[in-house]
Amino acid sequence: MINTLYLPEIREMLEAKDADGLREFCVALHAGRTAEFMEGLEPLEAWEVLQATDNATRVAIFGFLGQDTQVEILEKGEPAQLAPLIAEMPPDDRVDLLNRIGPPIVEAILALIPTEERRDILRLRAYPEGTAGSVMTTEVAKFPESLTVRAALEALGRHAQGFETIYYIYIVDEENHLCGLVSTRQLVSHIGKPDVTLGELMERELVTVTATDDREMVAAKVADFDFLAIPVVDAERHLVGIITHDDVIDVLQEEATEDAHMAGAIEPLEESYLATRLIRLTRLRAGWLTVLFGAALLTALALQSYHDSLQKIAWLVWFVPLVISSGGNTGSQSATLIIRALTTKEILPKDWFTVVWRELLIGALLGAFLASIGYLAACFLAPTPAAAMVIPVTLVLVVMCGTLLGALLPLMFQSMGLDPALMSTPFVAGIIDIVGIVLYMNVATWLL
Amino acid sequence: MINTLYLPEIREMLEAKDADGLREFCVALHAGRTAEFMEGLEPLEAWEVLQATDNATRVAIFGFLGQDTQVEILEKGEPAQLAPLIAEMPPDDRVDLLNRIGPPIVEAILALIPTEERRDILRLRAYPEGTAGSVMTTEVAKFPESLTVRAALEALGRHAQGFETIYYIYIVDEENHLCGLVSTRQLVSHIGKPDVTLGELMERELVTVTATDDREMVAAKVADFDFLAIPVVDAERHLVGIITHDDVIDVLQEEATEDAHMAGAIEPLEESYLATRLIRLTRLRAGWLTVLFGAALLTALALQSYHDSLQKIAWLVWFVPLVISSGGNTGSQSATLIIRALTTKEILPKDWFTVVWRELLIGALLGAFLASIGYLAACFLAPTPAAAMVIPVTLVLVVMCGTLLGALLPLMFQSMGLDPALMSTPFVAGIIDIVGIVLYMNVATWLL
Repeated sequence: MINTLYLPEIREMLEAKDADGLREFCVALHAGRTAEFMEGLEPLEAWEVLQATDNATRVAIFGFLGQDTQVEILEKGEPAQLAPLIAEMPPDDRVDLLNRIGPPIVEAILALIPTEERRDILRLRAYPEGTAGSVMTTEVAKFPESLTVRAALEALGRHAQGFETIYYIYIVDEENHLCGLVSTRQLVSHIGKPDVTLGELMERELVTVTATDDREMVAAKVADFDFLAIPVVDAERHLVGIITHDDVIDVLQEEATEDAHMAGAIEPLEESYLATRLIRLTRLRAGWLTVLFGAALLTALALQSYHDSLQKIAWLVWFVPLVISSGGNTGSQSATLIIRALTTKEILPKDWFTVVWRELLIGALLGAFLASIGYLAACFLAPTPAAAMVIPVTLVLVVMCGTLLGALLPLMFQSMGLDPALMSTPFVAGIIDIVGIVLYMNVATWLL
Repeated sequence: MINTLYLPEIREMLEAKDADGLREFCVALHAGRTAEFMEGLEPLEAWEVLQATDNATRVAIFGFLGQDTQVEILEKGEPAQLAPLIAEMPPDDRVDLLNRIGPPIVEAILALIPTEERRDILRLRAYPEGTAGSVMTTEVAKFPESLTVRAALEALGRHAQGFETIYYIYIVDEENHLCGLVSTRQLVSHIGKPDVTLGELMERELVTVTATDDREMVAAKVADFDFLAIPVVDAERHLVGIITHDDVIDVLQEEATEDAHMAGAIEPLEESYLATRLIRLTRLRAGWLTVLFGAALLTALALQSYHDSLQKIAWLVWFVPLVISSGGNTGSQSATLIIRALTTKEILPKDWFTVVWRELLIGALLGAFLASIGYLAACFLAPTPAAAMVIPVTLVLVVMCGTLLGALLPLMFQSMGLDPALMSTPFVAGIIDIVGIVLYMNVATWLL
């Protein structure tokens, strides 16, 4: 919900060029709140409001604006005004943002940024999308192990604003090799013993990731261990960055969206729904649709091959959608459950036999249940109760096939080293459609 | 993947009752790592291993064991051994766990726990599942505003182990009203000015939640603002607890699972897939299946009512599954996109017109694309190319109906104040099946 509470006042101040009023508005609340109140403004209006305040506040509020707004500000703003903002933004966030705008604009802004920051941006931009490197930040509290608790606290105090988190301190040697970790919790609890060195306190057995690791795996690690941050190292164990809890939350949310899209047979969107261009969105959907359409064409061929039976026993046709959707729906359920459980590691590859066995049993129960409703309906539409038996018999078989395939296909993908989420539920349903028609026709031929 | 590296050694030590060896194993690594290595053990074996170490380490490792393992340990362990563990566990985690085991066992354990801890457990257990209260912890660093930076750091140092996070300090008055917040980052950066009071540093404009707020909304707030924790207050602004970043990650993951299940037409499981009993799992799936089966029965009735046309033009039947699945698949895509975008607030209610318009346009594009493939296929199966035109015309209409309904149904649910995720994609597909058959038959009657 957009909060329009202050919009008229802000617009009045903008018109009157009331810099004091705007500055006051920018600093009065938590930056996240201020950004919320600015949501109703046009991106360039928001940017004009931010000109009234100091660069640090500007960076803080800008960081909470919606991504689409941020992109538009970068695309339409003055590079000379944008450069100080980019120079001060957290390294991971700015790289993420710069990756979303056109190269000419990026170059124009980069040209105005101090050399050191520019190098940092270029280095992080080199990591491919989806890797740990693409979400890490380079602003890390790094200290040598000889430092005392007192000196460490003082150093932290001086640089507190420059680090993305000051709650984990990483201990490195002269060559920047990662040696250990001291939490600020430990520092504070040793405040009575200020001469203890970091080397004495540090934990040496660290969970680390490398910059090329898959970001989803990294996020899962941080989530499992309840870490505030995780260090990123290279092949020689040099500390190259950290990934913090807030980035992990973002990754988990983006991955959940990706999985939801894959489950719905859509190639994952990289931007938000409204920011994705119509043609691109159509293309991202057309791929899977073509595959599914191909599968559906097979159902047409299958039905054609049973042409004679269908002509003779016309009422069979009426139940075709019912039979295949029953299989498809139970199959979708199984696929949904198994894919999600594989993604969250509730099911491990070694469980496959249990899973398949459970799904078969559940399929038998659900099949019997649907078959009993189906039989009642079939008795109304079929010429005799005996003929109507085709429907319940088929339903039990189709539903069991549905749960079996719904479980097996994602497990198969997983065991082939592919993401089980790639096995979209409509695809599972599409395969079951074909199987369903073949089963139905064979049961009918056998019983009638 | 279960790490079996140390399993033989651990089992040997258990058999030999090698307490020193087991204690060494428990403390050698990060608790999360140790728990990983114990995953291959039976729950009671793991519990036996944990007996070798001190209570604090035991609590830390236990916290990283899988939930199913934790539940089994509580159900089968000795209450006398379990009570010290429960007494030391983080308040939110232990309540979560106790909610999953039978009342007689809970009572047996609670009877052995110190009064104060027991009261805390009973108070937190009173909050309904799904509320902020049910995930919050009561171990908060609370200080008066008159405290100086030096005194605050010293107090934190003394109690560092007792708080779930020491990185946010909450300032309360004598009646426990929440007045403000000081971060440890601020404390540390004022280490050179130790006589400054917390009252001078504290931020007064706080984002808070109440214990009865929906936990999903709370998690979204913490995620949006990149907070480490959020304070929970009652109606009189008394500080009753906090919700920390790790709980937020858990909530977000659980909600993503819930949404995935709803999208797949399954009532959300409360426990993991393997821990949910077969009968219960069947029941959670049967509800939606019955609704979907009801919708599918309508397709049978629809087809029956077109009996005469289908008898005359037999080849029409072959394309029934193709036509309805094309509508269902594009509809599922639209529903998936819109539901996810509504959940992540990428789409707001005010955008509904844009969304519907975009989906109609995309529907027209995708429809035209599928129609052209469909026409080629139909030319092979239909008697004349003119007759085959029924298929492409129907496909365009059905696909546009699919995208329209796929977008409208979740938007409608949202505007009725319901969770748009309740609108499962198979249900959307089921409705489109019926619409598809009616459209198909009407186009056929009109063209042939």
